[in-house]
Amino acid sequence: LNIHLTVAYDGTGYAGWQRQDNALAVQQVLEEKIAYLLKRPIELKAAGRTDAGVHALNQHVAFTVEDMPIPIEKLPQIINGYLPADIAVQTAELADDSFNPRFAAKYKIYEYKIHNAKTPLPNIRRYSAFVPNDLKLDKMAEAAAFFVGRHDFKAFCATGSVVKDTVRHIFLCRVFLMADNLICIQIKGNGFLYNMVRIIAGTLLYVGLDKIEPADIAGIISSKDRTRAGKTMPPEGLTLVEVGY
Amino acid sequence: LNIHLTVAYDGTGYAGWQRQDNALAVQQVLEEKIAYLLKRPIELKAAGRTDAGVHALNQHVAFTVEDMPIPIEKLPQIINGYLPADIAVQTAELADDSFNPRFAAKYKIYEYKIHNAKTPLPNIRRYSAFVPNDLKLDKMAEAAAFFVGRHDFKAFCATGSVVKDTVRHIFLCRVFLMADNLICIQIKGNGFLYNMVRIIAGTLLYVGLDKIEPADIAGIISSKDRTRAGKTMPPEGLTLVEVGY
Repeated sequence: LNIHLTVAYDGTGYAGWQRQDNALAVQQVLEEKIAYLLKRPIELKAAGRTDAGVHALNQHVAFTVEDMPIPIEKLPQIINGYLPADIAVQTAELADDSFNPRFAAKYKIYEYKIHNAKTPLPNIRRYSAFVPNDLKLDKMAEAAAFFVGRHDFKAFCATGSVVKDTVRHIFLCRVFLMADNLICIQIKGNGFLYNMVRIIAGTLLYVGLDKIEPADIAGIISSKDRTRAGKTMPPEGLTLVEVGY
Repeated sequence: LNIHLTVAYDGTGYAGWQRQDNALAVQQVLEEKIAYLLKRPIELKAAGRTDAGVHALNQHVAFTVEDMPIPIEKLPQIINGYLPADIAVQTAELADDSFNPRFAAKYKIYEYKIHNAKTPLPNIRRYSAFVPNDLKLDKMAEAAAFFVGRHDFKAFCATGSVVKDTVRHIFLCRVFLMADNLICIQIKGNGFLYNMVRIIAGTLLYVGLDKIEPADIAGIISSKDRTRAGKTMPPEGLTLVEVGY
């Protein structure tokens, strides 16, 4: 049986999704609790490996078991009874044997939130990056449109990443203001390079600060030069919001 | 000089606003950091003493100093440089010598948030109470209106409280649905008894669960009997949102 779960987590206390030797990852906690519940080891495959400190509203994961002693619709509540409060299973369903949450994903949506105010707000500090400077939101929104399309995003990939194909298709990239002076950068694509969303957010921040112009984005993309894009924004502002199948 | 600050805090890690002997309170942290900065002891007066675990978006506080070596408009940023991330000064201004944030308050607005969904969401768990049961929101909204007016709220005061006058004027009490399946109970009054908002929230929850009817609220108020009102809801759902002067 191939069990497909959606999972939300607050990444603040974790070294990211992927299991590691010397730090606690979300994958490890979830695998251990499910294994304890089902009394057999399981291995989780995930739609995306979120980095240390990054959050998820809808991470998609799957694991296979020979038989399932618990009704699948009751799995979320029962697994949540074993999980710490910063990880919570949202849904569970039976998937095709061939379903792999990473390879089957048609798109992912990430959101990066910038709290743009004179003073920080404690109740949103864990889920946003605080920027006190005046930002030109209109210019940021204008710049965001330049990311849409099929491009080589090498300039927006962390240096040292070993991925060969740096072409990705961005379906949507927009910037809008939410409540509490939160600026949301929402980006939907068929895949993302290492740190890509956080570098795009840092580049849009430079546009907001008038360090670069919206029309400069096309040239930065075509340069494939990491040093021409903005800084990598901190992880707490980033959330994996949705994966589409 | 009488300095008037507004302060936001995440109450999760604190024993409430008021300084205590054996636990860390928000007042202590704020007093110590301001005293360190100004190199003289100060004592903070606050609009309201929030309980352990309760949050504030706009707590109002004041302290007196003989002279102020720092321009008042720069105080928030400078004090915030010394504060932990779960407390942040929002504004600072010079007040009349007679200004006392508690006695000058014309009204306070509190919000109690209930996360009503099948599964909890980690990113809102610190600021809401999770209730998985089906709730009748229309009935809750209808019941809320019965709290408005000048009433003796003895039935909605924690037993053991020594306050003599239990009459309070509620100007507004409403229930509405926000994003993320959050039910917000918003209440504005000239003052609140010990645990009053959390008991009102618990009573409205009973209405939502069909344990009591909206029209029962009037009788519960007039009974002055704590055992007829609902349970005291947990502190994490409560936020002091505004104090009016």
